[in-house]
Amino acid sequence: MSAAELQFEVERLEARYAAALDDDRLEEWPDFFTETCRYQIITRENYDKKLPVGIFFANSRGMLLDRVRSLREANIYEAQHYRHILSPTLVRWREGDTVEAETNYQVIRTTQEGAMTLFSAGRYLDRILIGGAAPLFAEKLVVCDSRRIDTLLAIPL
Amino acid sequence: MSAAELQFEVERLEARYAAALDDDRLEEWPDFFTETCRYQIITRENYDKKLPVGIFFANSRGMLLDRVRSLREANIYEAQHYRHILSPTLVRWREGDTVEAETNYQVIRTTQEGAMTLFSAGRYLDRILIGGAAPLFAEKLVVCDSRRIDTLLAIPL
Amino acid sequence: MSAAELQFEVERLEARYAAALDDDRLEEWPDFFTETCRYQIITRENYDKKLPVGIFFANSRGMLLDRVRSLREANIYEAQHYRHILSPTLVRWREGDTVEAETNYQVIRTTQEGAMTLFSAGRYLDRILIGGAAPLFAEKLVVCDSRRIDTLLAIPL
Repeated sequence: MSAAELQFEVERLEARYAAALDDDRLEEWPDFFTETCRYQIITRENYDKKLPVGIFFANSRGMLLDRVRSLREANIYEAQHYRHILSPTLVRWREGDTVEAETNYQVIRTTQEGAMTLFSAGRYLDRILIGGAAPLFAEKLVVCDSRRIDTLLAIPL
Repeated sequence: MSAAELQFEVERLEARYAAALDDDRLEEWPDFFTETCRYQIITRENYDKKLPVGIFFANSRGMLLDRVRSLREANIYEAQHYRHILSPTLVRWREGDTVEAETNYQVIRTTQEGAMTLFSAGRYLDRILIGGAAPLFAEKLVVCDSRRIDTLLAIPL
Repeated sequence: MSAAELQFEVERLEARYAAALDDDRLEEWPDFFTETCRYQIITRENYDKKLPVGIFFANSRGMLLDRVRSLREANIYEAQHYRHILSPTLVRWREGDTVEAETNYQVIRTTQEGAMTLFSAGRYLDRILIGGAAPLFAEKLVVCDSRRIDTLLAIPL
């Protein structure tokens, strides 16, 4: 796979991931990850200081599924919509079927009344397994620029 | 055409489209569409409820040209500038020369005084004809996340 | 190099450039330019009127390095973080090893307290030299949509 083709595969994964969240297809969210995985939301401040304290952490597809169930039960998620705007991905490293990539992201939240706000901005630091039917996230670290993030509403980013 | 090349062609079309609008080259806008086409701006709410009530609708290049003339006569469009930020496109489907693709978009409006606001965010749902000299939109559905959109100013999105 | 491969190379340069600035690796910033170069920040208004008055101008790597030193001494830059969101690049022209490309950009600033604001939006107009080990900017014109830009804080955009 050429560098340009790899770029295409990785950006396509990111776009499919974002579309699933924006379309409120939360139940599909865990399927973007490997069975044993690492998903973490952390502030830029803690990430830079190497403090392991995150806003949310999961290390298996099952934990991600639990999170989806909680969000559905809390019934909070439905009151607003999200829109991801992604910057082109920067592939940092590749060895065999493992790829490391960074993607700047921005999420705009729209309430039912129509108010739009910048909900979150930051960077995805991803370790991706290619070579299967579709690429999967083995690790997704969501580094939020702002420390002000509503943990109650900590929807998948 | 490989999947990666198709991606390139579609993203290039979207980028040229956005640049024409941002550069205020409105007269070129209809040329991005097939002669018989479908261009619609609709809120996410109505789209999800399958209500056909849109903010703007056109089904020919001629109607798009009429819209440009109205905007020029109203002389409203010139008082501010727009900037599209697009997320990488997600190609959903392809058969022969027809492609269906989704693109998350965001439009920032800047007034002459310099105030910047998030004017619109949402998703393009496009049906694109490839195979000609340049790809063209046979259908462009602009699904706006917010219902609060100034219909008077409904500039092309 | 095919058009799709060129697109990949140019977008990768833009992504690396944005990542260096967002990661506060300012000292690497001059290395994205040719030795004799042209870097200018200008408002859209002045650009459209062909007024050569810019917010910042440099025509060598050395001047860019001086700028980095000033920003480090002023110690202002560290008080906030920046996040670039780029729209897919539009390659406009290519002849031999020279490429002209446009990229819509948006920069979100996050203060240490966690407040996020849209700091700048606009367009990069780039002349890029390919053919070397990595592509380099021979010219980067940053056209800001808003005239309201804090010149004291005029960090690299």
